Amino acid sequence: MSLRDELRVPPGPVDLTAYAPGGTPGVKGDKEKGEERLAALGDELLELQTKLFASRGTHHARQVLLVLQGMDTSGKGGVLKHTVGLVDPVGVHIVSFKAPTHEELAHDFLWRIEKAVPAAGYLGVFDRSHYEDVLIGRVRHLAPADEIERRYAAINDFEQRLVDEGTVVLKCMLHISAREQKERLLARLDDPAKYWKYNPGDVDERQLWRDYQTAYEIALERTNTAHAPWHIVPSDKKWYRNLAIAKLLHETLSGLGLDWPAPDFDLEREKKRLAEDTVS
Amino acid sequence: MSLRDELRVPPGPVDLTAYAPGGTPGVKGDKEKGEERLAALGDELLELQTKLFASRGTHHARQVLLVLQGMDTSGKGGVLKHTVGLVDPVGVHIVSFKAPTHEELAHDFLWRIEKAVPAAGYLGVFDRSHYEDVLIGRVRHLAPADEIERRYAAINDFEQRLVDEGTVVLKCMLHISAREQKERLLARLDDPAKYWKYNPGDVDERQLWRDYQTAYEIALERTNTAHAPWHIVPSDKKWYRNLAIAKLLHETLSGLGLDWPAPDFDLEREKKRLAEDTVS
Repeated sequence: MSLRDELRVPPGPVDLTAYAPGGTPGVKGDKEKGEERLAALGDELLELQTKLFASRGTHHARQVLLVLQGMDTSGKGGVLKHTVGLVDPVGVHIVSFKAPTHEELAHDFLWRIEKAVPAAGYLGVFDRSHYEDVLIGRVRHLAPADEIERRYAAINDFEQRLVDEGTVVLKCMLHISAREQKERLLARLDDPAKYWKYNPGDVDERQLWRDYQTAYEIALERTNTAHAPWHIVPSDKKWYRNLAIAKLLHETLSGLGLDWPAPDFDLEREKKRLAEDTVS
Repeated sequence: MSLRDELRVPPGPVDLTAYAPGGTPGVKGDKEKGEERLAALGDELLELQTKLFASRGTHHARQVLLVLQGMDTSGKGGVLKHTVGLVDPVGVHIVSFKAPTHEELAHDFLWRIEKAVPAAGYLGVFDRSHYEDVLIGRVRHLAPADEIERRYAAINDFEQRLVDEGTVVLKCMLHISAREQKERLLARLDDPAKYWKYNPGDVDERQLWRDYQTAYEIALERTNTAHAPWHIVPSDKKWYRNLAIAKLLHETLSGLGLDWPAPDFDLEREKKRLAEDTVS
């Protein structure tokens, strides 16, 4: 079974307590082995992503959008550095979504998202995403209840359009336990090199842990479509999280049947031209 | 002597024939040693760049703009993959400039550049840049002669503003020989994995090699300011080019005296709050 199948959320109601944040589904071995396998996957991932990028000028160009969602400290930044960092940065488009600006708030919640989707050939990565608008949006009542309700179907329609247009949407929830979050927050307070990652507001949000889990359960259930299914990635173990996302990306890119594009010029003519070239 | 000093173009007229494209100034050793040293530099570069990124919310935030210019096949893409790829992609902003669009052409040549400069804390990389407008712009007469003339001072003023505002502008010309370019173009025709990088138009531009070298000499002389000096990076040897850019970046970041930002919250209060936290 592929890891995509293994981690894919089945249709229907979602109960996050049924998913162990410390698990390592689909992967045998320990941290050391896991890090070795991640490094070994790097070259293959780079080749696949370069093929994706090479196709960007062709009629069959594709693009991949990796959506990373998770509670604070769940490791979105770690995935960017350790997994996304394995491929060629020229073909990667990372967008980190923060609290919306006044201008963004004056538009539909998908307005800023639309501007951030990957162009042909790119691996786009959303570090947080439109799902914030049904997560913190729901928990903190940042919009009226009927507006929050409207958004689930709007998201599904939006993602359907991306998929119809040739984008693969790979949605991952980085699933950590409240206990692990506490340890990671404490670690940030114990290391001057990590103070900058610490935000007292994260502890305020943490007080609403159960509400957030419920908001995730609702969001996962209602946007777990066939065209853009959700994956729950156990993330208490950082090495597993990084490896799992690498494998999901690898499976996704492999599934596109990518190949090097054929030359769009006359190969023999160009060889001859260059052979005769005397520029020096 | 730092490599920045070693590769910095001295004020005055520039004669590119005085710079050996196959040289390895400031670096002892061969390809194998060079690749080892690049890998060893990676961790230090990552830490420095993370400090730069960590400072982005502070009043003393800085940003770095690496400008990569060079003839086709000089290795701008290779530097992105092998050198820029060493740091955390979340804090990197790469912009690859292509032929301007109709909308861009309807504005001043710096209009699209302004939108692409790095925000506070970022390492911005220009893969080609505003210098195209005085290189191909000059060689191909894409603008009237007096407009081309106007641009040198406009570039200097623009870069002065970036520097005044806290940006370090690190300008590098990747210097290759016509012979090396021919070999690299032929290699692209010999490998199906490289066809996508081959553009017959590159061979047309190659016919104007001398005109391009002259345009570079003029541009380097006229925009070689104290606030944003030029560096010529011999690039016939790929390992040297990648290592040299890494060292230039390392020296640049080291020179900023970056440190981890102090906490902008009450450290003891937060520790106490978390210690007493019972969320689970």
